Amino acid sequence: MAPSVAVENLNPKVLKCEYAVRGEIVIHAQRLQQQLQTQPGSLPFDEILYCNIGNPQSLGQKPVTFFREVLALCDHPSLLEKEETKSLFSADAISRAKEILAAIPGRATGAYSHSQGIKGLRDAIAAGIASRDGFPANADDIFVTDGASPGVHMMMQLLLRDEKDGILCPIPQYPLYSASIALHGGTLVPYYLDEKTGWGLEISDLKKQLEDARSKGIDVRALVVINPGNPTGQVLAEDNQCDIVRFCKNEGLVLLADEVYQENIYVDDKKFNSFKKIARSIGYGEDDLPLVSFQSVSKGYYGECGKRGGYMEITGFSAPVREQVYKIASVNLCSNITGQILASLVMNPPKVGDESYAAYKAEKDGILQSLARRAKALEDAFNNLEGISCNKAEGAMYLFPQIHLPQKAIEAAKAANKAPDAFYALRLLESTGIVVVPGSGFGQVSQLNFYIL
Amino acid sequence: MAPSVAVENLNPKVLKCEYAVRGEIVIHAQRLQQQLQTQPGSLPFDEILYCNIGNPQSLGQKPVTFFREVLALCDHPSLLEKEETKSLFSADAISRAKEILAAIPGRATGAYSHSQGIKGLRDAIAAGIASRDGFPANADDIFVTDGASPGVHMMMQLLLRDEKDGILCPIPQYPLYSASIALHGGTLVPYYLDEKTGWGLEISDLKKQLEDARSKGIDVRALVVINPGNPTGQVLAEDNQCDIVRFCKNEGLVLLADEVYQENIYVDDKKFNSFKKIARSIGYGEDDLPLVSFQSVSKGYYGECGKRGGYMEITGFSAPVREQVYKIASVNLCSNITGQILASLVMNPPKVGDESYAAYKAEKDGILQSLARRAKALEDAFNNLEGISCNKAEGAMYLFPQIHLPQKAIEAAKAANKAPDAFYALRLLESTGIVVVPGSGFGQVSQLNFYIL
Repeated sequence: MAPSVAVENLNPKVLKCEYAVRGEIVIHAQRLQQQLQTQPGSLPFDEILYCNIGNPQSLGQKPVTFFREVLALCDHPSLLEKEETKSLFSADAISRAKEILAAIPGRATGAYSHSQGIKGLRDAIAAGIASRDGFPANADDIFVTDGASPGVHMMMQLLLRDEKDGILCPIPQYPLYSASIALHGGTLVPYYLDEKTGWGLEISDLKKQLEDARSKGIDVRALVVINPGNPTGQVLAEDNQCDIVRFCKNEGLVLLADEVYQENIYVDDKKFNSFKKIARSIGYGEDDLPLVSFQSVSKGYYGECGKRGGYMEITGFSAPVREQVYKIASVNLCSNITGQILASLVMNPPKVGDESYAAYKAEKDGILQSLARRAKALEDAFNNLEGISCNKAEGAMYLFPQIHLPQKAIEAAKAANKAPDAFYALRLLESTGIVVVPGSGFGQVSQLNFYIL
Repeated sequence: MAPSVAVENLNPKVLKCEYAVRGEIVIHAQRLQQQLQTQPGSLPFDEILYCNIGNPQSLGQKPVTFFREVLALCDHPSLLEKEETKSLFSADAISRAKEILAAIPGRATGAYSHSQGIKGLRDAIAAGIASRDGFPANADDIFVTDGASPGVHMMMQLLLRDEKDGILCPIPQYPLYSASIALHGGTLVPYYLDEKTGWGLEISDLKKQLEDARSKGIDVRALVVINPGNPTGQVLAEDNQCDIVRFCKNEGLVLLADEVYQENIYVDDKKFNSFKKIARSIGYGEDDLPLVSFQSVSKGYYGECGKRGGYMEITGFSAPVREQVYKIASVNLCSNITGQILASLVMNPPKVGDESYAAYKAEKDGILQSLARRAKALEDAFNNLEGISCNKAEGAMYLFPQIHLPQKAIEAAKAANKAPDAFYALRLLESTGIVVVPGSGFGQVSQLNFYIL
């Protein structure tokens, strides 16, 4: 009998899915790391530097103390009854942990919660959004998730019926989107960010790609915008955002706004505006635009990737559609409570007057200033290197330099049956231990993606 | 323009999916709970009792102290440098936290981990499995997951190509399986547990259902076995398990073994045997049988549902198939680190001689004895009620009594356009505040599913 489970009889959508940020180069890096352990000195470097993904704490960034104090107290609430705790934890971490526990039915941080997340934590998140945007937010619109990725998957699962359903995605794009669209059997409809104009997003190109897809019979369901951009680091201008919102309304598209880098902006002349704020500012209400905003505890200055916390804020969906989202969420019961708590803290950090405020502010500013400094240093370094050019790093956590490879390198890549950028990334890894993602993984050849370590 | 997103244009697989344990009755219960808050005294009860799902800590079960001590220390490692910590935490919790942190690259509990989970934690899990089974286990076979559900989804996503692919599932079944098969577009091939023989699993029925499905052109890919059973509570006999393993090998089926209730056995004459142990005991090696075992931190005596920890142990898959599983796992980056740590603790709890051992043992025994006592009390109570009969509760966390409704009740249900069991469950909720799941949600009419609170 043939093997009951073989690559030939797996779901072809799984086979088609690619995820470059954890792909071939990273697997090779893990092998080299093992080699460094078993045969020290056998490679031209002593350490693997993972710049393939924004994973700040793996490269030494410290977590924000206040957040971790609150998590520890919520994990082990009997600490709150001990006298010694007062000398080990800040007073506002203690009071915040008490507030959070009071908001959890039965103070049970080990119980399944409501499938959208604990109501009291969603209230805190909604208050944080309202204070950020200056427009109201509603806890019923919040779905707390294990990081942003499961939220994106949920939306793809909801919207994609078959390969005739399409999602407009930026190219270059964070490969979560291409992977998720492939897994759910839809079609990625590309639109192109223009490197020459600092990775600008042109509505005319959007329109052209949409019409082109429609002419091929694709029902385009949604537009993905990543702002600040991943992997490109651009920050959208407000008027550009207004145009995008109008475009989605006019064309009947769901706007999927990946806003996980909302705290990561490194230039003075740009600021973050959520798409919800933009939509409300130009007078669009709930019913004008189905809009989903994704946020994550993994990015920003918090960098708590391993805690898997995040949320999506869903507005403009009808009640019956919302019920379907709830149903999908309920099949996984709920997201992890530690991540839920952290999502509420990130959206409602210490305020002026709180005992922890000064220390919190210093940690936050230190991290963001360091990221900005490193972004600039890396940008300058790239632009001083022969054969490399790099746009200004406005935000997010990455640089996406273009590499101009000599013809001989391109031929060597071809001989090795690799894309030139993948070939370069592999040689870079083998010579220096630095792990980057070839631009082709993001849909863009001749680029490398560097986390700004 | 028609609404861009409406129920009519959603993924029909999502619309088809049902998930009774968080379905209509539960949503109605949440409404009543709000009513109790806003209008106290307006209902014939003061409290909603959620027996719809095994969620022990929501009903007052306390977490195991040792586990929570370790989690708190890992969340806030700077505690380990403070003198006061020694008086607040047990010595073995402190040393365990140090061990765990040493196993995490950069001691970073806030970093994404390897997509299968942190290697050192997988080593601990594999050691726990080996010690439980008396057969070796390998950390490379472990995929740490956010509870068991995401593992089940991953397997369905891998195996199901279209509606011509089937999965053999027990009826009654925990509706995660029917929901996941619906979401991934496959076909549920039922086999029937026989209430008369204490929910026995007959190989002859399995064989008949398999052949029947094949005659309809269904390619049956896998067999789901839940042991101890959910919602039925039965514990499979060893010879029955041997037959199941042989059946899967002979028929070329992947065996998906839901073993999340492995610690929940309440009768002296039954014990838990993992399917891997059974397979190895009868001489089957890796290559004889693709086998996936699911475990969760949500069940057992630990009951840590909200922490979303668990793992699947995958054996008998070829390397290229395993790579595809890894790829799916990597698209979600990793499971939450708190859940990963907890999964390692559950499989490697305090041992004789450890400072916490006596307290840990007392907590564990107290919880398991209380569950056993409540299972027996509820079973007796049901069997003493008119019109209700109930099998012996051997394991898991549920009872699944049969209700024999009078004709008039059945007619009233029909008039209300409800299944009789759903009608009864709704009336039970409205009269008493007790939330149970109608048996029809598990594929079995005329039953109710009670969590043994």
